[in-house]
Amino acid sequence: MTAPGTLYGLGVGPGDPELITLKALRLLRACPVLAWPAPEEGPSLARSIVEEHLPGGQTEIAIRMPMSVARFPAQEVYDRAADEMAGHLSAGRDVAVLCEGDPFFYGSFMYLFGRMVDRFPVHVVPGVSSMMACSAVLDAPLAARNDVLTVLPAPIEENRLEAALATADAAAILKLGRHFAKVRAVLDRLGLAGRARYVERATMGEQQRILPVAAVDPEAVPYFSMILVHARGAAWTL
Amino acid sequence: MTAPGTLYGLGVGPGDPELITLKALRLLRACPVLAWPAPEEGPSLARSIVEEHLPGGQTEIAIRMPMSVARFPAQEVYDRAADEMAGHLSAGRDVAVLCEGDPFFYGSFMYLFGRMVDRFPVHVVPGVSSMMACSAVLDAPLAARNDVLTVLPAPIEENRLEAALATADAAAILKLGRHFAKVRAVLDRLGLAGRARYVERATMGEQQRILPVAAVDPEAVPYFSMILVHARGAAWTL
Repeated sequence: MTAPGTLYGLGVGPGDPELITLKALRLLRACPVLAWPAPEEGPSLARSIVEEHLPGGQTEIAIRMPMSVARFPAQEVYDRAADEMAGHLSAGRDVAVLCEGDPFFYGSFMYLFGRMVDRFPVHVVPGVSSMMACSAVLDAPLAARNDVLTVLPAPIEENRLEAALATADAAAILKLGRHFAKVRAVLDRLGLAGRARYVERATMGEQQRILPVAAVDPEAVPYFSMILVHARGAAWTL
Repeated sequence: MTAPGTLYGLGVGPGDPELITLKALRLLRACPVLAWPAPEEGPSLARSIVEEHLPGGQTEIAIRMPMSVARFPAQEVYDRAADEMAGHLSAGRDVAVLCEGDPFFYGSFMYLFGRMVDRFPVHVVPGVSSMMACSAVLDAPLAARNDVLTVLPAPIEENRLEAALATADAAAILKLGRHFAKVRAVLDRLGLAGRARYVERATMGEQQRILPVAAVDPEAVPYFSMILVHARGAAWTL
């Protein structure tokens, strides 16, 4: 009987191809099978990040997600991808799933992880997350000393967002997209807009944009954007 | 007049030397001057992470911090290090400060950053943080979907810790050290101890330890340890 392959969740970093780790790069090149998330049509961001590092000749599995936010089509897409990966793993072939940022920090990898962890060896390689990338390109510490840092997905209810932001020392607001206008209204009510900065596609070269929150067009906010808030100000001198 | 050098804050990752990024490795090797934090006596963790990658022949600045938690000796240590680095930068030599994990995620780099950013070019290279490393070695997603993730330094007041943990979907509690007993008492009161796991020196080879919170000896908890709490349970199937 063939020993099963290992499923790797590879954090490939926030966008700059140079922000991949040595470990993820080694496994990326060594695995005979790669899988990557992508929209229903068009290129995969995760694959584009590592494209320059690919040796060629690997089997690739595209996990294409329909735009619809309904759960059931998404479940089917992950079920199908899991079946295809299971075929390779059962035959002894390692499979690497490419994950933007870090696999376990709000990543869709967990849906595959949940389907595979009881059946095959799984190994997760942590990556540089977009949150740390945003902080670096903003030239501003994310959290310091005994700051409480709150990480808030923008789709949560407005009341909860407001309550969390009212008490946080520092906050990162993720997954902005069509929720930007709601988030900005909350920041305005709390008097925090001046302490907040908006970053789009951090470390992605010429696609990166940094703006004051007041200058952002709410109709043109991509999913890969983030707001960092330093509620206590720039208190980074000892 | 010589153009000034650049001060780099290099995230070197959580401990495994293979979890450094290609970018940090390139700059680490290219900078003529390295600076690294260390205790008053003994080796530097940040330097030990990158030791195998060093080409030799670089000037090194040790930033040795006394055990005392008093502010004024610490200020003097950073002032002296900043002066020494300023000498190199003014002479056109780039200086790389080695930072465990990510430079701007609770890192001491910010104290040097605050002293230098108005005088010299500064560039921060984000790194894999210990929080992502702990999540990876625990084989458990840190935050999923619309979870609110709260990052709590253990030294904060017990009341504040309890209020934050009572409402978080997921939490990371950092800088445990001598604050472990207080943290465990709060987790016990909230009924969260069974949903919390303790990790020591994640990705640091044989030094890594993973324990249920109940099994930890509060007298033997190092600074480089963390508790991750999944208050809503392991809800990582779609």
